Amino acid sequence: MLQGPGPADRYAAADIVQHVAPTRFLDLGPGYLDPELVSIDTIGCAYSAALARYGDMALAYGHNQGSLPYRAALARHLTRTDAEPWTPSHLLTTAGTSQALDTLTSAISHPGDVVLTEAPTYDLALNIFRDHGLTVSALACDADGPDPEAMERTVESLRSSGRRVAFAYLIPTFHNPTARLMPTPRRKDLIAAAQRQNLLIVEDDAYADLSLDGTETPPSLTALAKWDGVLRLGTFSKTLAPGLRLGWLGGSPRLCRRLADRGVAHSGGSPSHLTALAVAELMHDGSFVEHLERLRVHLAHRRDALSATLREHLRHDFTLRPVRGGLFTWVELPRWLPEQEAVARASAVGVAVQPGSRFGSPDSAVRLAYSAHPPTHLRSAAARLADVWNQKG
Amino acid sequence: MLQGPGPADRYAAADIVQHVAPTRFLDLGPGYLDPELVSIDTIGCAYSAALARYGDMALAYGHNQGSLPYRAALARHLTRTDAEPWTPSHLLTTAGTSQALDTLTSAISHPGDVVLTEAPTYDLALNIFRDHGLTVSALACDADGPDPEAMERTVESLRSSGRRVAFAYLIPTFHNPTARLMPTPRRKDLIAAAQRQNLLIVEDDAYADLSLDGTETPPSLTALAKWDGVLRLGTFSKTLAPGLRLGWLGGSPRLCRRLADRGVAHSGGSPSHLTALAVAELMHDGSFVEHLERLRVHLAHRRDALSATLREHLRHDFTLRPVRGGLFTWVELPRWLPEQEAVARASAVGVAVQPGSRFGSPDSAVRLAYSAHPPTHLRSAAARLADVWNQKG
Repeated sequence: MLQGPGPADRYAAADIVQHVAPTRFLDLGPGYLDPELVSIDTIGCAYSAALARYGDMALAYGHNQGSLPYRAALARHLTRTDAEPWTPSHLLTTAGTSQALDTLTSAISHPGDVVLTEAPTYDLALNIFRDHGLTVSALACDADGPDPEAMERTVESLRSSGRRVAFAYLIPTFHNPTARLMPTPRRKDLIAAAQRQNLLIVEDDAYADLSLDGTETPPSLTALAKWDGVLRLGTFSKTLAPGLRLGWLGGSPRLCRRLADRGVAHSGGSPSHLTALAVAELMHDGSFVEHLERLRVHLAHRRDALSATLREHLRHDFTLRPVRGGLFTWVELPRWLPEQEAVARASAVGVAVQPGSRFGSPDSAVRLAYSAHPPTHLRSAAARLADVWNQKG
Repeated sequence: MLQGPGPADRYAAADIVQHVAPTRFLDLGPGYLDPELVSIDTIGCAYSAALARYGDMALAYGHNQGSLPYRAALARHLTRTDAEPWTPSHLLTTAGTSQALDTLTSAISHPGDVVLTEAPTYDLALNIFRDHGLTVSALACDADGPDPEAMERTVESLRSSGRRVAFAYLIPTFHNPTARLMPTPRRKDLIAAAQRQNLLIVEDDAYADLSLDGTETPPSLTALAKWDGVLRLGTFSKTLAPGLRLGWLGGSPRLCRRLADRGVAHSGGSPSHLTALAVAELMHDGSFVEHLERLRVHLAHRRDALSATLREHLRHDFTLRPVRGGLFTWVELPRWLPEQEAVARASAVGVAVQPGSRFGSPDSAVRLAYSAHPPTHLRSAAARLADVWNQKG
């Protein structure tokens, strides 16, 4: 099967993948992992191992909530890294956060409902919410995240005007796009506010495994709330590979059972069944955690290469948010440098960056992903960016 | 990774897969392929080949509409077996028919809409429709399928009472549960009726590759309509393995682009990206077609083993529908043998069958899947069934 010319020889990358970096550009746009950071052999071996271990069961319709080997391995991993003991009954297999958000929005909201989000927030989630007829209402945020009292007032005001609020969509850990890490006290205050209002929180925790300073991240909102009114979405797209299309939903056993009881699960079983068993192999034999440790070291070097060079060279009226994990650096621009001008100047020196407006940012800013390129390239890009961005007038 | 005790050793089959056959029963219930009919090695090699050929691209976010190698291989396969030339622009990658129906219902219907179905029909699709707030309206069927004039009158009547009709969900080829094969003239009449009413048809074509008599199946509704107002759902769950979670949607290029432009695709790319490239390898090197040829031979033997024995032994007041393809035999029961009694008698001799009421059948009947067991077991089961079912009063 491996010999001879094959279909790959006839197709361009743009025919196969979602996004191809602009030629001759250093693309700091999308939040992708550098393929160099993931071993293709490891993924191939994981599939072989799952097929060898589970045989026919890996190829059958999967358990509606997700196979127990996958959920049990996840529960052990989450228990090691979170504040409460996770069990398989708190978990549901998903085909990644995008599928989970799409299914969840379909299952728990109605067209016309409002979804509350941080401003800025993950831009592509907004399209999913809008596909389901939801109206997005942005929450005022400070350096710690959304203001709990303001969130309560927003919910009360919406409800008093007859609107239904479906849920609040929050990214408390290494926030996309700002890299903000919400401290534990703010987490507790937000949970208390949400519980007072009987408001569901959907916690997008795509970056939780990517703490880059060797420090523990705060407990998840979901664990702090003991699964009461909060659910958590995780993914392997930011730690292994998005092409796997594999993630998980963490919530109360009742919520997980309810979602596993939907028609789509009764008909097709759990999403990504074979793939979930393959990734369970990597979690079971310790190679996922070893991979994460190496990945964090590489990402920390990359973050440092980008942000140290920017800090060293950028004028003092640029603001770099601290980055303790995740994939992104967020640069707030001085008044005299409009966002689109910053993007255009970056482009002129061969660097692609994303404007804050894309994420609904109230501040003029740009997002830079440091995850897709080696440190030398990042240092060079940062020097060029500082050079063109510093030119005032 | 393969040495030593692993998670499989600690889990029961029911922890891993959706359904486990009742112990000591010959389970003719679900429409599963016998694992003996699919080579686990072939699947493993397909993943290895895709990873070797596409490298990083197989692990990245996939092209929103689905990777071209997969869609091109599918288009070639469909062009060989259908009446019109299929192109990649007529295809969208799905994670199987269940995901496709769930996403489609979300994208093109509104809560309160009506969906028209055959009676009986695929039972688990109904749950998906109901999850989205649709009302199911069953169409009167004869031996060829739904009556086109009756379908038109139903649509007119629903609309005149202010109801919106989302689409008609039809399984024209080797229908589940009845195995009915809709002849070409009926297909044309239904398309004409639907087009007069501006009614979308969703054609579930899960069994199209499983013609068992060496004869060509009629053209798909979608090809007959030249993609105008008809879309087609295909899956590898009935030909390779449901654990892959891989299928396709065939429709007009405009519809495929519209679905690929939804937020969930912009965020996560196409479903089952790596898996689709793996299956593209099997289609590209001819091994999928070779597998299909072997599969059809095995399934034909099994169908014959079951139905010849039933025909030979059952009383003449039982009606066996002809089975020219697919996975099922449909037995209509005489008046004196109620459906639940037939199921109970089968159970008493160690055979599990599914009652027609499960599929919304207006006639008293049972569905028997011959796909999961070897011919000797099927002959033995059929003899036992005839023995207990023939006992009148």
